[in-house]
Amino acid sequence: MSKSDKKVLTIATTAAKLFSAKGYIETSMEDVAAAAKISKGGMYHYFGSKCDILNYILSTFMDFVLENVEQDVQQIADPAEKIRLLILRHVRTYSEHMYLAKALLHEAHNLPSAKLKKIKSKEKNYFAALADVVSSYLGYGVDKDRLTVLTFNLLGMCNWIYSWYNPQGSIGPEELSQMIFDTFTRDLSTFRRELQEQ
Amino acid sequence: MSKSDKKVLTIATTAAKLFSAKGYIETSMEDVAAAAKISKGGMYHYFGSKCDILNYILSTFMDFVLENVEQDVQQIADPAEKIRLLILRHVRTYSEHMYLAKALLHEAHNLPSAKLKKIKSKEKNYFAALADVVSSYLGYGVDKDRLTVLTFNLLGMCNWIYSWYNPQGSIGPEELSQMIFDTFTRDLSTFRRELQEQ
Repeated sequence: MSKSDKKVLTIATTAAKLFSAKGYIETSMEDVAAAAKISKGGMYHYFGSKCDILNYILSTFMDFVLENVEQDVQQIADPAEKIRLLILRHVRTYSEHMYLAKALLHEAHNLPSAKLKKIKSKEKNYFAALADVVSSYLGYGVDKDRLTVLTFNLLGMCNWIYSWYNPQGSIGPEELSQMIFDTFTRDLSTFRRELQEQ
Repeated sequence: MSKSDKKVLTIATTAAKLFSAKGYIETSMEDVAAAAKISKGGMYHYFGSKCDILNYILSTFMDFVLENVEQDVQQIADPAEKIRLLILRHVRTYSEHMYLAKALLHEAHNLPSAKLKKIKSKEKNYFAALADVVSSYLGYGVDKDRLTVLTFNLLGMCNWIYSWYNPQGSIGPEELSQMIFDTFTRDLSTFRRELQEQ
């Protein structure tokens, strides 16, 4: 990432933090410039409008989520390990870009529809990558509607962490990923058995 | 529910539908009155402000979610059946009040903090009810942090349906509930076995 790209990402992350605290609508370009410690003129050098910032945030976050996802998955043979990797990638991307992720969850509807459509299309690509791996785990025999539900169950657990999970807390990203993997693929009573064995 | 209560709920649902289409901030009291086919004066008879509508929506939805939850759970002895019931209740409440649920997911942050605090406290009560049942399923031996993750995994699957599930589609609320229950409690390979037996 170039120095200039890094600067843009830093400003966008500062903006995302403000959106998370007081909402996109209530945050002004002046607020972002002040928090990012640049002049309002300097601000417009990077972003033409608040909407551009939001679009950059959501688009960049989805690019992080999608980055090399197909190559990463193809390098692994075992479908269960593919699922495990996708969960770990998801939790790590959230942990590294928490405020961008929160903006995606809470503020996406503020984008004009042409821009929102592009974000949704990236989300669809990601969903397709997840669905493909779940389908391979199930031997490609599951019908489309049930595959959709199972994939959204997985995505729901992974995305819901945006609303509660603190990567600096007592459960680290690796442990959280393992627990989502276990919930998705294993019998819940295995947790009970493990507890009894402790 | 009295006739007047029903009228209030109908107006609030109409408003929630508008919020879902164009966002809370961009929706005016006039928009709500026009969509609900009442005069603007009539509108103020029911709600003093747009914020009152949003507060009514979120508060009422959480009351539906919490309604008799403890009694319902206590009437069942088997912890697995308790979990199944909680999922079915959740999916049904969403299916009946889809637009109220979507407003809770997308617009809660627009409430002033004192009102938001009351909604959050209802959400906490609901989370505690879920956590208690998951804990009982696991024989009360799981530590607090892991119980939190497992309960958020369950809540994540149940809440994420707000973003994608259409109760009028090919998967009915009962089937969806069963699939969430299976994902949460069972080994994913049971889906594969069932497919092979078909």
